Formats: sequence, C-alpha cells, structure tokens
Amino acid sequence: MGEEGQLTAVFAALADPTRRRILTQLSQGPARVGEVAAHFEMSAPAISQHLKVLERAGLISRTVQAQWRTLSIEPEPLDEASAWIAKQRTEWDARLDSLAEHLEVMKSRHENSNEAKE
Amino acid sequence: MGEEGQLTAVFAALADPTRRRILTQLSQGPARVGEVAAHFEMSAPAISQHLKVLERAGLISRTVQAQWRTLSIEPEPLDEASAWIAKQRTEWDARLDSLAEHLEVMKSRHENSNEAKE
Repeated sequence: MGEEGQLTAVFAALADPTRRRILTQLSQGPARVGEVAAHFEMSAPAISQHLKVLERAGLISRTVQAQWRTLSIEPEPLDEASAWIAKQRTEWDARLDSLAEHLEVMKSRHENSNEAKE
Repeated sequence: MGEEGQLTAVFAALADPTRRRILTQLSQGPARVGEVAAHFEMSAPAISQHLKVLERAGLISRTVQAQWRTLSIEPEPLDEASAWIAKQRTEWDARLDSLAEHLEVMKSRHENSNEAKE
C-alpha cells in the first residue's frame, strides 16, 4: 500500500461515525475490545468489522496482554491525513494572499494614476 | 445533514485519489470543469461523478461566469475535518503527558524511598 493507498484507507476509515467514536474513545487511552463494544448498541461482529477497517488503515493496533486483547490508537496515520489537509489549506491561503497583494498593487497603481491626473 | 453527516461526507469524499488530486488542483485557484478534466485520463461522466461527490460534501462550489462553469475549493469543510483530527491528537497527547507525569511522580517517590532507606 503506497502513500496514496494509505491516505485513501485512512480517510475511508474516518468516513463512519461509529469508527470515529471508537477513535475518540481510544484517544483517552488504550481499552479492551469489550470496553469499546460496551459503548455501542451493535453486534460483536459489526464492532469487529469496524475494528478491522481501523486496523487495516493503521489507525489502531491490538496487543495481547495476558488473556486480554487491548486496542490502542496509532497517531501517525492521523498526522498524515492532517498534513494532507493542511497542505491544501496552505496552497489556498497562499493563493488568497497573492490575490490580495495583486489587488493592493492594482489599487496603488490606480491611486498613482489619479494623483498624476490631479 | 448534521455535523456527523457532514464529517462523514467530507472524509468519504477525501477517500479517493482522483478527488484528492482535483482538490489539490483547485487549491491553486478556481478552474473550469474542462481544465480539471484535462488532468485525468477519465471519461467526462466519471469526472462529473467525482465532482458531484466533492460538491455534496461542500468541498467545492460551482459558479457560472458567462458560459463557463467555474469550480472553486471551499475551505471550511476541510477545516472541520482537520479540527476533528486535531482534537483526537490533542486528547492523545494529553494522555501521553499525564502518563509521563505519572511516571515522574512514581520515579521521584521511588528515589525518595531509596534515600530514606540509606
């Protein structure tokens, strides 16, 4: 899975309210599968399916401690998704800045030409 | 469409490399549909479908100038998606900080108890 595939998997994983709520819960700290499932009125296979999507996107990891399977959030893919969004915003803001500059130049030329006429 | 529905639509729209490339192109400034389509070896209906998904998520808008349909990026939904991600990261970082603090306290207690023994 390349960088593009990774981003696609992360955004697809985030495109579901249940999966976003699971991540919000895990951002408070690692939790067992049962603790996560307890927050949702959903069948165990449905929760398990959501966890698989999050895991494949690299957003969560599972570790086995004693007999317990613990889920943890993995922040790196969130950072990559965030960086992608930030990049578009930066380009867009730069574009707005250069438009504003352009308008300033136009305005000052206009004022200068008016002064010359006076 | 509530806030959750909006976020779901935005993340689903971003979960496609073609749609992300369209946004990257439009972050450089508004463009006509034909200029966007020229960047992709894709049928007009396929591009049109991607534009519809972006438009429904509120990520782009269309304006008609003379006979031209112009596409512009709309930054607000990107900001909302970014804010959601940032929130999870902040919670997670706060959790790591409080763990680190807890470890410091444990360590200093341990050192004090060792000094007491000496």
